[in-house]
Amino acid sequence: MDRLRFSFSALSADAFLVSHLPNIRYLCGFTGSAALLLVEQSSATLFTDSRYTFQAREEVSSARIKIAKEGLIRAAGEALRNRRVRPRVAYNPGQFTVAQLSAIKKAASDRVRWIDGGNAVEKLRSVKDAGELALMDEAAVLISAVVKGALSGIRPGVTELEVAAEIEYGMKIRGASGASFETIVAAGPHSAWAHARPSSNALRKSQLVVLDQGAILHGYCSDMTRTVFLGRAPANVRRMYRAVLLAQEAAKAAIKPGVSGESVDAAARRVLKRERLVQYFTHSTGHGLGLEVHEMPRLGKGEKTILEEGMVVTVEPGVYVEGLGGIRIEDDVVVTATGCKDLTIAPRDFIEL
Amino acid sequence: MDRLRFSFSALSADAFLVSHLPNIRYLCGFTGSAALLLVEQSSATLFTDSRYTFQAREEVSSARIKIAKEGLIRAAGEALRNRRVRPRVAYNPGQFTVAQLSAIKKAASDRVRWIDGGNAVEKLRSVKDAGELALMDEAAVLISAVVKGALSGIRPGVTELEVAAEIEYGMKIRGASGASFETIVAAGPHSAWAHARPSSNALRKSQLVVLDQGAILHGYCSDMTRTVFLGRAPANVRRMYRAVLLAQEAAKAAIKPGVSGESVDAAARRVLKRERLVQYFTHSTGHGLGLEVHEMPRLGKGEKTILEEGMVVTVEPGVYVEGLGGIRIEDDVVVTATGCKDLTIAPRDFIEL
Repeated sequence: MDRLRFSFSALSADAFLVSHLPNIRYLCGFTGSAALLLVEQSSATLFTDSRYTFQAREEVSSARIKIAKEGLIRAAGEALRNRRVRPRVAYNPGQFTVAQLSAIKKAASDRVRWIDGGNAVEKLRSVKDAGELALMDEAAVLISAVVKGALSGIRPGVTELEVAAEIEYGMKIRGASGASFETIVAAGPHSAWAHARPSSNALRKSQLVVLDQGAILHGYCSDMTRTVFLGRAPANVRRMYRAVLLAQEAAKAAIKPGVSGESVDAAARRVLKRERLVQYFTHSTGHGLGLEVHEMPRLGKGEKTILEEGMVVTVEPGVYVEGLGGIRIEDDVVVTATGCKDLTIAPRDFIEL
Repeated sequence: MDRLRFSFSALSADAFLVSHLPNIRYLCGFTGSAALLLVEQSSATLFTDSRYTFQAREEVSSARIKIAKEGLIRAAGEALRNRRVRPRVAYNPGQFTVAQLSAIKKAASDRVRWIDGGNAVEKLRSVKDAGELALMDEAAVLISAVVKGALSGIRPGVTELEVAAEIEYGMKIRGASGASFETIVAAGPHSAWAHARPSSNALRKSQLVVLDQGAILHGYCSDMTRTVFLGRAPANVRRMYRAVLLAQEAAKAAIKPGVSGESVDAAARRVLKRERLVQYFTHSTGHGLGLEVHEMPRLGKGEKTILEEGMVVTVEPGVYVEGLGGIRIEDDVVVTATGCKDLTIAPRDFIEL
């Protein structure tokens, strides 16, 4: 929690009240589903409930543990009320509901000055340390192996749901706690939905199949997409695939410390514009990845965040043509001192099955 | 959305701005991951982003669809700014972040009077209609079949993770979109963690094994727990199991329209007190179930919500003894005109494998 404490002086705060569970996990290791973490200069307190008594004791050593009997907000508010000096407590307005803020103000009476701490913890989390990168590498290698394994089961007659079930089983049996998000297996026209849910429709010959999946391993997410074709693809599909791959390579080539998220997005978009496909690229080029599947920074229009060494992002341009289908190629990369390095390792060549 | 509109007059509101995704799905059918829904007297508008253009068109017929280019909050705020009459717009402070409220106030300039709409939509959702109950019955039957199937694979030497992987595969292959929550398979002392994550530890003889799992089918969640013993259980374990089952039966017997959530919880707790086990019962007796795995009402201390016909709740007393292990038995029930009816149908007798 030391890195967070460094931000206290910049924020003119005595403490940070952290409510977002991934932030709490990052700061003190607690993985339960109900908690508040109060970080002060020389101590920290984790508030959780009686379901997590044993677990908190086992997972958390850097914070005191308080089992709240009447709600976490109330317990935290009462702890703050009893401070001798009126504390200045930072919080993230993007993670506190209007109701929570009003409840904790009430519980702490007027003993606290509340300060907008912004996304200080999210910013810390965006740059991964060596230990985190080792875990993210494991999660990325895992999902690469799962996808390679799944390809052998993809053939006409199998349903999208069956493929997705095999993929998620493959994650779990390799030690993942679960999928980072609901696995997408989308064939034919369905593949034009960037966030399609797998259906009980059987795959058919001459279809594009988008496979987008990620696993959570030791808390860290991976996220990878491959697009394959069932049979011999027509020239326009091959051309589209090549354009998306070129766009992905251009985005990866643009990544290095000091450049903005939007400039990486622009690099991918430039290629697709040249290929006259940019109107079919309907989402951002990528997003930060870590304890959450979407975190800072975004690689998209308007994103001014400057990339730093140690950030992990997805690079996933795609084109979606209603009626015809979609193509997306996605890898996870880590920003290095001079560029970026792939974490996901499955082949990117166009695969005709 | 008509039922929501009925609450406008009670709230003195002209509109309700809905931000919580399960509420949006409930009201208009949209299942994407980014949306705001503005419900007005004679119209409704769904704000989503370009990733969901096709999907929104396919899923939503009762609302206009607006694809927001610069953020959903901004699009919704600007739509409200252009009303001729200054509208009174309700929102749920428990579902809006402090940052969102401040952003939409800015986007709508001062053209809106914001009203605390509380959990009006969550209240509607707590009472299921016949169509929803049919889907929830399917989800409950599905998870019952999955657990029955999984029992045959539970034996010494298999890891918690392998059992969990089989269970989640079983859900998915039967059509579930995924697990309602990370499947719990917890053996031996680990079973004393009410929310344990499956580990790579192999099951051993003479261990309790808690299996807690749920599937999401057509958007609706199931949630069921069974506890089994590997081998012949000692007398104290059998006694504990019997006590938990009696507590569950007492809670079910207490459920009917007109009683409060806390009185059902008290019925379970009374039995465990008589059995001198109540100090090991460290959570609530149950919770509402539907589009979310935890929703209104809670069956726990302090819950004044009165049960109504059509509500669906879990009934899941448990005891957790550090070092020895845990026992939990959980079913999903629907409140009927005169009592309640089980939706989950797996046997509850003590199973020694």
